[in-house]
Amino acid sequence: MKNAESSAINVASETTNSGSIGKKKSTTPLLAAEVPIRPDRGTHRMKRGLAIFDIVLRIGALSSALAAAATMGTSGQTLPFFTQFFQFEASYDDLPTFQFFVIVMGIVAGYVVLSLPFSIVCIIRPHAAGPRLLLLILDSVALALSTAAAGAAAAVVALAHSGNSSTNWLAVCNQFGDFCQQASGAVVGSFAAVLLFLLLILFSALSLKNAH
Amino acid sequence: MKNAESSAINVASETTNSGSIGKKKSTTPLLAAEVPIRPDRGTHRMKRGLAIFDIVLRIGALSSALAAAATMGTSGQTLPFFTQFFQFEASYDDLPTFQFFVIVMGIVAGYVVLSLPFSIVCIIRPHAAGPRLLLLILDSVALALSTAAAGAAAAVVALAHSGNSSTNWLAVCNQFGDFCQQASGAVVGSFAAVLLFLLLILFSALSLKNAH
Repeated sequence: MKNAESSAINVASETTNSGSIGKKKSTTPLLAAEVPIRPDRGTHRMKRGLAIFDIVLRIGALSSALAAAATMGTSGQTLPFFTQFFQFEASYDDLPTFQFFVIVMGIVAGYVVLSLPFSIVCIIRPHAAGPRLLLLILDSVALALSTAAAGAAAAVVALAHSGNSSTNWLAVCNQFGDFCQQASGAVVGSFAAVLLFLLLILFSALSLKNAH
Repeated sequence: MKNAESSAINVASETTNSGSIGKKKSTTPLLAAEVPIRPDRGTHRMKRGLAIFDIVLRIGALSSALAAAATMGTSGQTLPFFTQFFQFEASYDDLPTFQFFVIVMGIVAGYVVLSLPFSIVCIIRPHAAGPRLLLLILDSVALALSTAAAGAAAAVVALAHSGNSSTNWLAVCNQFGDFCQQASGAVVGSFAAVLLFLLLILFSALSLKNAH
């Protein structure tokens, strides 16, 4: 308040010389009202940079989620020998965990596509808190979904690789090596998506600071 | 604003008589810098409420993570019959996934304990962005860790319950019913922790908005 007083004094003391007090009086409150809304230049550029980086990360997350879903979805192997009654075949839908993985990765990829327009809005208006907040919350849900799918698939892939002697679950990767390798690749892709979502949340939080 | 204006002008007309223009001029930019920092009353109370809710959620997440770790860590069953060479026994450290689960849940519980002081700082200073930002980022890492452990343990528990005919993995829950039930309980506890972490991120994001 002390400052407001003294600056007003300044303007007033200048205007007393020119004599047009009435006209200048009306511009005084505009000074106080307009300056805080005008964003800081450095913050503005940093936020726009973060928003552009956000869309790049989003495209990366989209491609790794899609790649994980596609790799797992096309994984399958038929062994080159068969008995009279049975053909040896492995496919991702033999294991419910892998089916869950494909579905969740598909959903996450769909969400990332739908989130791209909001990310573009954040580039145009780097100080808007609404879309930024929405993206942060939905990103953390997508993070949880894809991490759950990735963890579950990783646990099953590890069992398929090395088996478990206590429960008498034998390793199936000796027979179905190609299938296992494809599934492992899909798991790696999903963990890449998880890391990208973590980075997305980090940058969203940074640019939410000081947003209005 | 109108009051400030008219009172300031009043003072100004008095000071022009004393003639000390040079000294007053230097304080002008301070006006624009100081007015917007003064926090709004309603926002302040909302943020303090969010901070108090944050610590309640944190205590909930701590107890569910601890409960999950303890339930899984003490799970084990010895069958009441044995052959000459072998005693039938199941324990959580027979399965690497369950070991991972116990370790991760312990780490997450430790993190939540360490984060409590920062949460208290957020109650005292609801407008501080630093500790809020730190908590949000570390919470999302804790979310990813606990979701991965929960997903992996859930996949293995599902296999233990129903087995898988394609890979010839038999259900072990027929023999070790108590063990399986304890493990399932631990998985439920870990998913409760996951939900609480999601809520923590949501409220951190809400209170980060407009923070300085």
